[in-house]
Amino acid sequence: MFQCTGYAAEAPDKPLAPFTFSRRDPGPTDVAIEILYCGVCHSDLHTVRGEWEGSLYPSLPGHEIVGRVTAVGAEVTRFKVGDMAAVGCMVDSCRNCESCGEGLEQYCENGFTGTYNSPDTISGGHTYGGYSSHIVVTEHFVLHLPENLDPAAAAPLLCAGVTTWSPLRHWGAGPGKSVGVVGLGGLGHMAVKLAKALGAHVVLFTTSASKVEDAKRLGADEVVLSTDADAMGKRYASLDLIIDAVAAQHDINAYLNLLKRDATLVQVGAPEKPLATGVFNLIFKRRNFAGSLIGGIAETQEMLDFCGKNNITADIEIIPIDKIEEAYARMLKSDIKYRFVIDMASLPKAA
Amino acid sequence: MFQCTGYAAEAPDKPLAPFTFSRRDPGPTDVAIEILYCGVCHSDLHTVRGEWEGSLYPSLPGHEIVGRVTAVGAEVTRFKVGDMAAVGCMVDSCRNCESCGEGLEQYCENGFTGTYNSPDTISGGHTYGGYSSHIVVTEHFVLHLPENLDPAAAAPLLCAGVTTWSPLRHWGAGPGKSVGVVGLGGLGHMAVKLAKALGAHVVLFTTSASKVEDAKRLGADEVVLSTDADAMGKRYASLDLIIDAVAAQHDINAYLNLLKRDATLVQVGAPEKPLATGVFNLIFKRRNFAGSLIGGIAETQEMLDFCGKNNITADIEIIPIDKIEEAYARMLKSDIKYRFVIDMASLPKAA
Repeated sequence: MFQCTGYAAEAPDKPLAPFTFSRRDPGPTDVAIEILYCGVCHSDLHTVRGEWEGSLYPSLPGHEIVGRVTAVGAEVTRFKVGDMAAVGCMVDSCRNCESCGEGLEQYCENGFTGTYNSPDTISGGHTYGGYSSHIVVTEHFVLHLPENLDPAAAAPLLCAGVTTWSPLRHWGAGPGKSVGVVGLGGLGHMAVKLAKALGAHVVLFTTSASKVEDAKRLGADEVVLSTDADAMGKRYASLDLIIDAVAAQHDINAYLNLLKRDATLVQVGAPEKPLATGVFNLIFKRRNFAGSLIGGIAETQEMLDFCGKNNITADIEIIPIDKIEEAYARMLKSDIKYRFVIDMASLPKAA
Repeated sequence: MFQCTGYAAEAPDKPLAPFTFSRRDPGPTDVAIEILYCGVCHSDLHTVRGEWEGSLYPSLPGHEIVGRVTAVGAEVTRFKVGDMAAVGCMVDSCRNCESCGEGLEQYCENGFTGTYNSPDTISGGHTYGGYSSHIVVTEHFVLHLPENLDPAAAAPLLCAGVTTWSPLRHWGAGPGKSVGVVGLGGLGHMAVKLAKALGAHVVLFTTSASKVEDAKRLGADEVVLSTDADAMGKRYASLDLIIDAVAAQHDINAYLNLLKRDATLVQVGAPEKPLATGVFNLIFKRRNFAGSLIGGIAETQEMLDFCGKNNITADIEIIPIDKIEEAYARMLKSDIKYRFVIDMASLPKAA
């Protein structure tokens, strides 16, 4: 075991604060990483505040991790000390079930081990995430980070990036396809960049007139104010795919009606309460309403390589870790373009 | 023009009653049919009672039509006088759009002409359906009825049959697949028969203990009472496809959770109000919630040929047309196993 520092919350009503803990020494298949940057995802906030069921305390979140390899186990073949590496939302899965066999570990039938807040089947206790100095992860769940990408701006690719990449690829976004993106936040802005780079015609839907210009800068071919009934009506049955990144309650039917026959709206934002779904909107054009969860390890690597090749990263604001509570408060007001990333050099050294 | 008799409602609050009207003489591409039997679909009742928007009066419903050809136009090649023929929910479409080009006339981008209650683009006025002595339909929308099938029991194949056949085929029901069917009514009982004949393992879900034995007789391999939480829990993530034939409000989430990863629940029943859809149920296994509308002409013929080969028809109760209001009242109580079919020999002769 070796000592690490991080920021954790002791209880749902306690702020994140400096926290010292131990991680396992790297085993034969493990990669040890010194964390350089960690993105701030809305899931982090839900978890530390106990807003979803099953938060485990101390809660140490973070699953958009970029760093440098400091040690590798004897059986590790794909990484060596000094490599840039990345870790996303998962650090283990059963690797035996059908989903794992297909490289879709996020749908592991026995449940994947989350990077934080999961029972830690290797070290005991529960997993601690990326708001920390180091992490030790079995090689299969460690990604190569292209050296040309800014490591801070690349961190959000590990969750926001792959969460939108996976459905874009699964449902065939590319040249000749019109792809709608609903909501311009952390996930939405990645969906716009990735769909555009994949060659699709991108239509961004937002409720904020103030986001129109920025959406175009990010690559949207068209920007539609979803409050403009005329503009919405003009897009009736025009889209091949919609990535809906809105996590709040919203009218899904307005978007279902924009799908062509046989097209799919994929929810990647996760509203807590059910969405009222008009069945006629599905029936009359055999439309699909689907969901998608992050992405598998192989497709995460594919996405990182694609981003390396196309020089794609997130639009970020770097913060020191002692500003994390302030960042959460701003995130709740959507006052961020488009992702906070923690600089881990700001962590206090171990006592 | 020639005179026909039928049963029509003059207004939403008026019962169906004898009605005399004219149909066009068959044009070059038309097939004229003497109607022998017409199935009674819940849509008929919604339309005559004005429960859906846009009912046109006099309202003469019926779109599960079986009869014998009495005349054909000069350009008709696939039918001759004396042939058994059938007509379903559509009598025309634009035949120019992408959907029509793919044989999916039910999704015609310019709107298909319904067998009843649609503007009649050929004869003017609005279309009158199958509760009548004769019908004249352009050849493309006329189906061949296999001679070995009982014509009365075959009538419901034209709507209830193809409405379940189309999604079963589109989403790949067959050997090695587990298919759930929700609700044992007109549509549900056809879904059970067709899915079973396609080689799938069929699991029928019902709220009525009284339907368990009958569902097995119809071909269900398993019958689950949806009120039995244990039995539902045991089917978690076990189904490749669900055909949901329930038109009333119901908890869709209980069924979404029974789908495997990447599997689809298809709503063919059409609840008026939106269904509350839990997004997490979609996200965690990349599940799909879809809708499907009747079926195209080519797949309707495919279904009829399949039914001919496998000797499949609906379970029916034959009524004379003067019992139609009584049949509607019983249909509203689900007091029918499983479809009423009107014997058109019971129609009063023209005055």
